[in-house]
Amino acid sequence: MAKNLVSREENYSQWYNDIVIKADLAENSAVRGSMVIKPYGYAIWERMQAELDKMFKDTGHENAYFPLFIPKSFFSKEAAHVEGFAKECAVVTHYRLKNDGKGGVMVDPDAKLEEELIVRPTSETIIWDTYRKWVQSWRDLPILVNQWVNVVRWEMRTRLFLRTSEFLWQEGHTAHATKNEALIEAKQMLDVYTEFAEKYMATPVLQGVKTENERFAGALETYCIEALMQDGKALQAGTSHFLGQNFAKAFDVKYLSKENKLEYVWATSWGVSTRLMGALIMTHSDDQGLVLPPKLAPFQVVIVPIYRKGDEMEMVIAKGKEIKADLERIGIRVKLDARDTQKPGFKFAEWEFKGVPLRIAIGPRDLQNNTVELARRDTLSKEFTPMEGLRDKVLDLLDEIQDSLFSRALKFRENNTYEVDTWDEFKDIIANKGGFVMAHWDGTNETEDKIKEETKASIRSIPLDYDDSDEGKCIYTGKPSKGRVVFAKAY
Amino acid sequence: MAKNLVSREENYSQWYNDIVIKADLAENSAVRGSMVIKPYGYAIWERMQAELDKMFKDTGHENAYFPLFIPKSFFSKEAAHVEGFAKECAVVTHYRLKNDGKGGVMVDPDAKLEEELIVRPTSETIIWDTYRKWVQSWRDLPILVNQWVNVVRWEMRTRLFLRTSEFLWQEGHTAHATKNEALIEAKQMLDVYTEFAEKYMATPVLQGVKTENERFAGALETYCIEALMQDGKALQAGTSHFLGQNFAKAFDVKYLSKENKLEYVWATSWGVSTRLMGALIMTHSDDQGLVLPPKLAPFQVVIVPIYRKGDEMEMVIAKGKEIKADLERIGIRVKLDARDTQKPGFKFAEWEFKGVPLRIAIGPRDLQNNTVELARRDTLSKEFTPMEGLRDKVLDLLDEIQDSLFSRALKFRENNTYEVDTWDEFKDIIANKGGFVMAHWDGTNETEDKIKEETKASIRSIPLDYDDSDEGKCIYTGKPSKGRVVFAKAY
Repeated sequence: MAKNLVSREENYSQWYNDIVIKADLAENSAVRGSMVIKPYGYAIWERMQAELDKMFKDTGHENAYFPLFIPKSFFSKEAAHVEGFAKECAVVTHYRLKNDGKGGVMVDPDAKLEEELIVRPTSETIIWDTYRKWVQSWRDLPILVNQWVNVVRWEMRTRLFLRTSEFLWQEGHTAHATKNEALIEAKQMLDVYTEFAEKYMATPVLQGVKTENERFAGALETYCIEALMQDGKALQAGTSHFLGQNFAKAFDVKYLSKENKLEYVWATSWGVSTRLMGALIMTHSDDQGLVLPPKLAPFQVVIVPIYRKGDEMEMVIAKGKEIKADLERIGIRVKLDARDTQKPGFKFAEWEFKGVPLRIAIGPRDLQNNTVELARRDTLSKEFTPMEGLRDKVLDLLDEIQDSLFSRALKFRENNTYEVDTWDEFKDIIANKGGFVMAHWDGTNETEDKIKEETKASIRSIPLDYDDSDEGKCIYTGKPSKGRVVFAKAY
Repeated sequence: MAKNLVSREENYSQWYNDIVIKADLAENSAVRGSMVIKPYGYAIWERMQAELDKMFKDTGHENAYFPLFIPKSFFSKEAAHVEGFAKECAVVTHYRLKNDGKGGVMVDPDAKLEEELIVRPTSETIIWDTYRKWVQSWRDLPILVNQWVNVVRWEMRTRLFLRTSEFLWQEGHTAHATKNEALIEAKQMLDVYTEFAEKYMATPVLQGVKTENERFAGALETYCIEALMQDGKALQAGTSHFLGQNFAKAFDVKYLSKENKLEYVWATSWGVSTRLMGALIMTHSDDQGLVLPPKLAPFQVVIVPIYRKGDEMEMVIAKGKEIKADLERIGIRVKLDARDTQKPGFKFAEWEFKGVPLRIAIGPRDLQNNTVELARRDTLSKEFTPMEGLRDKVLDLLDEIQDSLFSRALKFRENNTYEVDTWDEFKDIIANKGGFVMAHWDGTNETEDKIKEETKASIRSIPLDYDDSDEGKCIYTGKPSKGRVVFAKAY
């Protein structure tokens, strides 16, 4: 394989792009801004989906499917929402093509839609238009629904996984009888995302609340998790919105309460997207390529047989199959790379680049000694280990790798989180070091905007559980502050 | 619940629509031609997806994701394909809205796309444009890829699940070095669909090949499975296409063979869609509502507790939970309906209507006698059975119901399949009885068209394995025929 990879230090954004392309995760398509997710990348996304879907169902949610197209007029119904979403989006205006007489096709001008349709950028409007029909009494609540779909937000500058015009995501949309229930739901889903990020992605995240500036268009409160990438920039990894009664009012969704009163319904929505693939890559990967946490790796173990002669090949591959079957029996995902068109060195390099957590190499001498060579992707260390007890050894190592990736990422975040109290230090860290900067802020949109203009750092969140007993003064204006918030440059 | 359902005999198409709506499977949306798939309906689709996906992976396929939008010019590249698909489709012409100054939004005329984008009606073109980059040598073949996505084909007359403008499906797209490999793949996937239809949907299907008239636009051969609905109409339940080198030539996809020659790649594509939901409903359901085969039922067993007083409630529900846990331990999907807002009679009617294969009722007397009441949805029969051995009893009954639904459907098909040799009899059966009519045909498009014009019956397929030793004469023209084909009116 011998993939050339520029180092992170040399050119971080090219390093990222090269990993995505050369590890066969995704590529740009013929359609500007739309990516092709390749089988190896999609297999990681499928693992993410499977784990998240299970967590959603364990917390009482069901999946459903709502239309791709939304009538244009729906977007005008919720005032804040239209500002945020009805701008850069794909608009369907016609429903037919015809022959252009020159061997091609053209849009048929007679097939113009009366009302244009918008390709969903998010589905609050069409879903709340539907919920109106589903809700009459308190008995119909709560509605706990999620959908796994594609959405489109027209983007001028795109980057694979991080920002594409079309992307895949899940969007949960729930309806509740009371404000408190909806708030509990929004926070519960933030906890679900946190658990997923930390346990499965091995990516530590900060829980927080968005400032008004950064809030979802139509929400009263946006909860979020923020992760720190290796270049010191923040990445928003998931959001959960408390929508109040905004959409219920816009779409007239009321229920008859136990007390026989007509009340507007309370709402939440929450989502994570294929952007998580970007977060996963940028949290763990190194200058040798992709590094995957075992819980999300399509293959947790790759077995590479080593042989020179024909009879060696047979015996070594037979042993490889035996080990594969033995590991698969307890649910480990194993690839036996028995291609005879490639040499072992090529295979080593390929699977290392593709981030498979553990590699097992077996050669003729291993058969004699009853050993295998085990190599860890995270540390790039190797050891010989007896065949006996291999299964437990592999299980232990996979756990150890999962834990160690999380610890390493947590340590990185700790080393790159700063409490800052002067404007000069703030500017210096943001410009030269990056990372999370915990600083006091006076609570106004204007100050937030000015800091962003001058430094490109935005307020990622007001942390939910940051230990901050000191009252302080705004880093920028010197006015009183109620507590530190998290500043960073962000993806 | 007390759902009103018109009988099949009285009004078959209303019966179908009522089941879809009243069993909470799907409903029409605010967007013409697009449906909302409700959680209960989506849960059945998820079961279908899970089983099919496993079968695809067991035959070596991987999932991926290709863009929703396809540049208009792509459709002109394959001559037959453009005729079939580039007509009734959704066209994106703009990428921005702006305020209209009256509180609403309008399409921004400055944001017109240079080339219009088509919302995929099927993805051969965008995928083969991508495969050009993936294939250089024979080592890159075969490519065995599938995607689970939404597609849009503009429809004027829509019916829930059976014909909607947007629908969900999977589309497999494979690339091979040789013609023979591609043919084997196309037939293999037809077998996969057949196994799925018969084993999981309990729906018997006829395997066949489409006539030229009915072939997929761009295919050299379209294999299909056809099922017979209870109203005597056929429903195409899945297709698998041998595409030859048509798309490779249109998109210039060549590979360097082992013999060092540049050759065009061979292709297949194959798909099933949410249409299968319609087939499932119309194969098994009855005048009491939906009937689901156990293997695809979201809940295989519903437990309904029966009680009058508070202390009875506690004991009965505790027993219900115990039974649920016991059944779930061996993988049975169980719903305990412990709502105290509804009476048992209501719950019986609701779950019967929703087609849950087995109902367990437990009351205080059952606790004393150590029994439960078991009711089968397929036969509507009831029996008391001892608590001891309940688990095995349930397992056996679920298998029995699955088998018996298939046998019943097969018997229905056998009773409604006719070998016909005269034109009068042909017209009479098609007009008055429906069903599959096996008749001789002279092999020409013109005869096929005329028969369709006069009777509305089309050739569903040329069966792959119909026992037909007699040489015969075309039912319509009297010209020589090579064998019987399957005629029917179709969905």
